[in-house]
Amino acid sequence: MVITKAELPVTPRECREVFRRGEWNGPTTGLCIGYTNANLVIVPESLAYDFLLFCQRNPKPCPLLEVLEPGDPTVKYLAKGADIRTDLPRYRVFVKGELVEEPTDVKKYWRDDLVAFLFGCSSTFEGALEKAGIRPTWREGRRLGAFITNIQCTPAGRLQGPMVVSMRPIPAHQVAIVVQVTARFPTHHGAPIHIGDPAAIGIKDITKPYSGGPSDVRPGEVPVFWACGVTPQTVALESKPELMLTHSPGHMFLSDIPSDRQAIP
Amino acid sequence: MVITKAELPVTPRECREVFRRGEWNGPTTGLCIGYTNANLVIVPESLAYDFLLFCQRNPKPCPLLEVLEPGDPTVKYLAKGADIRTDLPRYRVFVKGELVEEPTDVKKYWRDDLVAFLFGCSSTFEGALEKAGIRPTWREGRRLGAFITNIQCTPAGRLQGPMVVSMRPIPAHQVAIVVQVTARFPTHHGAPIHIGDPAAIGIKDITKPYSGGPSDVRPGEVPVFWACGVTPQTVALESKPELMLTHSPGHMFLSDIPSDRQAIP
Repeated sequence: MVITKAELPVTPRECREVFRRGEWNGPTTGLCIGYTNANLVIVPESLAYDFLLFCQRNPKPCPLLEVLEPGDPTVKYLAKGADIRTDLPRYRVFVKGELVEEPTDVKKYWRDDLVAFLFGCSSTFEGALEKAGIRPTWREGRRLGAFITNIQCTPAGRLQGPMVVSMRPIPAHQVAIVVQVTARFPTHHGAPIHIGDPAAIGIKDITKPYSGGPSDVRPGEVPVFWACGVTPQTVALESKPELMLTHSPGHMFLSDIPSDRQAIP
Repeated sequence: MVITKAELPVTPRECREVFRRGEWNGPTTGLCIGYTNANLVIVPESLAYDFLLFCQRNPKPCPLLEVLEPGDPTVKYLAKGADIRTDLPRYRVFVKGELVEEPTDVKKYWRDDLVAFLFGCSSTFEGALEKAGIRPTWREGRRLGAFITNIQCTPAGRLQGPMVVSMRPIPAHQVAIVVQVTARFPTHHGAPIHIGDPAAIGIKDITKPYSGGPSDVRPGEVPVFWACGVTPQTVALESKPELMLTHSPGHMFLSDIPSDRQAIP
């Protein structure tokens, strides 16, 4: 049985159960606003040090929240008892630098040597932006677009690649407040890394995102860019690890932690 | 030739050169105020993942700033070209859970498989506290004391142990401003983890620190406690790794990065 977006429950725990049963495989945009969202990366233990170091060296795109034990798919902190193999609506599977599948669970790929990393996501501050008077564009059907930039991440071991950013079109008079609000969420990409001119960070066409969208910037709006948790996926394409499992862009892990707990007071 | 404290130079780079030449082996308290100070932990590559994960899980005592490559003693970011084996005034050597030596360099212990971790230190915000009108107690000869608490760190792999805290005696009317100022330095232990009653975190005698001091709390003052970068040293005592090299408490790595750059704006 597949349900419609309107039928989705309101708590993260119930949503994860719906995802686990395979009843919703769409994006999590607009779901459980006010709860901490997380990006997911799963790599073999042999690559875990490199990835952990990559996160330490690139805290804007990869601000770590929780690291699971090798072979253990059970989340302890962000959502006690959640199963990382099934509790997101859609995943991506990268094998030796190729995206081979976007399945709705990764049970068949699970191994005793896999280590799961969960890190912050800008969806976490959507509620705070709305409270500050910023109208979320997703309410108008304009989904967040993610773009590959010409900003190189700091390499770590065998991992390297360009930074991915998400773009929100913000009315010019609200750009300053958007900076102030999001700076309070350093573990969810924090303040923007770039404001204005897309070409300056290597984005040729703002209407053609790498993932997500439709994306546009209308008169009176400024494109504002945040480091994005899709970054490890471009690292997988460039660095070609044996195996990397991730969430599918926009299909996030919904945790039980209220977003307010993630903000600097 | 050994010099006196008054003869020490004013820039971190010059101070590191003095330490490297062995002309000053005392604490760095009060030196190069306004520059980022760092704690040091060096472990074999075989323990590096566990330690990196320990830092991720315990960001209050161990907020990472830089991780060097295995076998490479050269600092890249915090102080370009500094030699981590010689550029601190004094070190500690832990072998299988025992403190065996406090040498002035660790050249004879260096190996191709060692990985150096540098993380934030509360000395970094001393200048900001003074600007906010908090008189530094070290100016009165009262050195910071470090205490072992009954707060257990979150274990990571083979590493576990109690959290160490530093204590500053703060006039009661200034406690709130001390919280506000230090919260702006999350990569230097950030806001206090405890204010008041030492017994509540397992400290029996505030005049008897584990290291540092002399320590006291005078009438009108409140003891304020910050997570401390000496924590990995008690982890070494409890977890007994084959080898761990650290700074000696109070003998910090003085970086070239202005403290202001480490603060949330």
